[in-house]
Amino acid sequence: MSELTVGQYELVGNFFSFAIAAMAAATAFLWLNRSQVSKKFRPAITISGLVTFIALYHYFRIYESWTGAYTIVDGELVESATGLFNNAYRYVDWLLTVPLLLIELILVMGLSKAATVSKAVRLGGLAAIMVILGYPGEISDASGTRWLWWSLSMIPFLWIVFELFSGLKASIASQPESARGLVNSARWLVILSWAFYPIVFVFPMLGLSGGTATTAVEVGYSIADVVAKAVFGILIYMIAVRKSEADGSTGDAATA
Amino acid sequence: MSELTVGQYELVGNFFSFAIAAMAAATAFLWLNRSQVSKKFRPAITISGLVTFIALYHYFRIYESWTGAYTIVDGELVESATGLFNNAYRYVDWLLTVPLLLIELILVMGLSKAATVSKAVRLGGLAAIMVILGYPGEISDASGTRWLWWSLSMIPFLWIVFELFSGLKASIASQPESARGLVNSARWLVILSWAFYPIVFVFPMLGLSGGTATTAVEVGYSIADVVAKAVFGILIYMIAVRKSEADGSTGDAATA
Repeated sequence: MSELTVGQYELVGNFFSFAIAAMAAATAFLWLNRSQVSKKFRPAITISGLVTFIALYHYFRIYESWTGAYTIVDGELVESATGLFNNAYRYVDWLLTVPLLLIELILVMGLSKAATVSKAVRLGGLAAIMVILGYPGEISDASGTRWLWWSLSMIPFLWIVFELFSGLKASIASQPESARGLVNSARWLVILSWAFYPIVFVFPMLGLSGGTATTAVEVGYSIADVVAKAVFGILIYMIAVRKSEADGSTGDAATA
Repeated sequence: MSELTVGQYELVGNFFSFAIAAMAAATAFLWLNRSQVSKKFRPAITISGLVTFIALYHYFRIYESWTGAYTIVDGELVESATGLFNNAYRYVDWLLTVPLLLIELILVMGLSKAATVSKAVRLGGLAAIMVILGYPGEISDASGTRWLWWSLSMIPFLWIVFELFSGLKASIASQPESARGLVNSARWLVILSWAFYPIVFVFPMLGLSGGTATTAVEVGYSIADVVAKAVFGILIYMIAVRKSEADGSTGDAATA
């Protein structure tokens, strides 16, 4: 960590600030536009906003921790004596947001009550296990330890991704025609944005080291978080709007 | 307190931050989704959100107090000269939130007006006495003093838990069938999450000392608070949704 250049330090800080702005904007958009969708999809939109709201909070903490861990003295980056960069915030964030992300997707699919509860419990539980198994690897500097926990964490990861990918494909036929294209996009967005995380995790094991590894990991996770939470949340909102229109139950009719 | 390691210090800080995020998310969810339940259950949902909102405020104070009480200097944890960790915030929080928690549960049960008021006054009053009796024990380092106030506080505690447990059981038959399973879950969640507090309180009297005792107490209370307030609030919301559906009075009808 001490081998960061001033340029790398500032780049990472700017990405954290970008994530704060993106998460705040997505939260405001989702909560303000919640009444645009029919009543049954509102919990899905509320939860989409919760995900970006929780991420917003954690990016504030991450930013504060980052700027507190270093000082620039005469143009040189110096590790501050009183601070340490705390990367546990990401894991606390994921522990809360990843199960909620899955729940927002399940809710907008409009499955039966029993299927909604069983899928939410199973996928939400797997997601929590996945995050918990990743953490011991993340805080280790030893390549072997990192690979061990990465592999363990990949088991629930692959299970979730497979279930979403095949489950969403099967459900496309039952969606109104106007929403099918978007549901298919959501399916691909989940795969692509989620695939980012295990790849970013292995950067330090692939020969990247010191400041370059830290920069690649922090920038990589920030981009993945903005796509998987903010962009995905907007897509969920668009699906809910199309499905509300197809039902003939717009937000207006529901509150009228 | 001075025997904390850097790892314990950071673990406790991360749990406080987790509690902040969980309480904020629960508050937003409850207040935004208040209109999803019928009008007569909305005060219960508002109060559920008040409980997590008050807890959110206190966890901010607790977090600030914690990070102000210590400094990390060259990788070593040093007690800061200007701060002391203030654990009175928890008791101020409980004095407000525990009576409200009981009231949200009573309100969602949909008892008669007279029964609602008498139960709310009796259980709310007992809860306040319980919290006040616990405090002199919490701030003492002497095992004897801690046991004395713990025992006194256990009298209202057991009274409340017994009344809820038997009272909720008796009321299950009068709930709509779709809500019975959830009311039964709420009953068990109260017992299990509440049982945590007197157990955490006795950690320092059972041989845990120094940093280990502090860490166990702070982490234990944080987990208990998230379960007893945020998870419990969501359960109350789900009961209110099911009961609104059973009444045929959805949020829409109520606002029409």
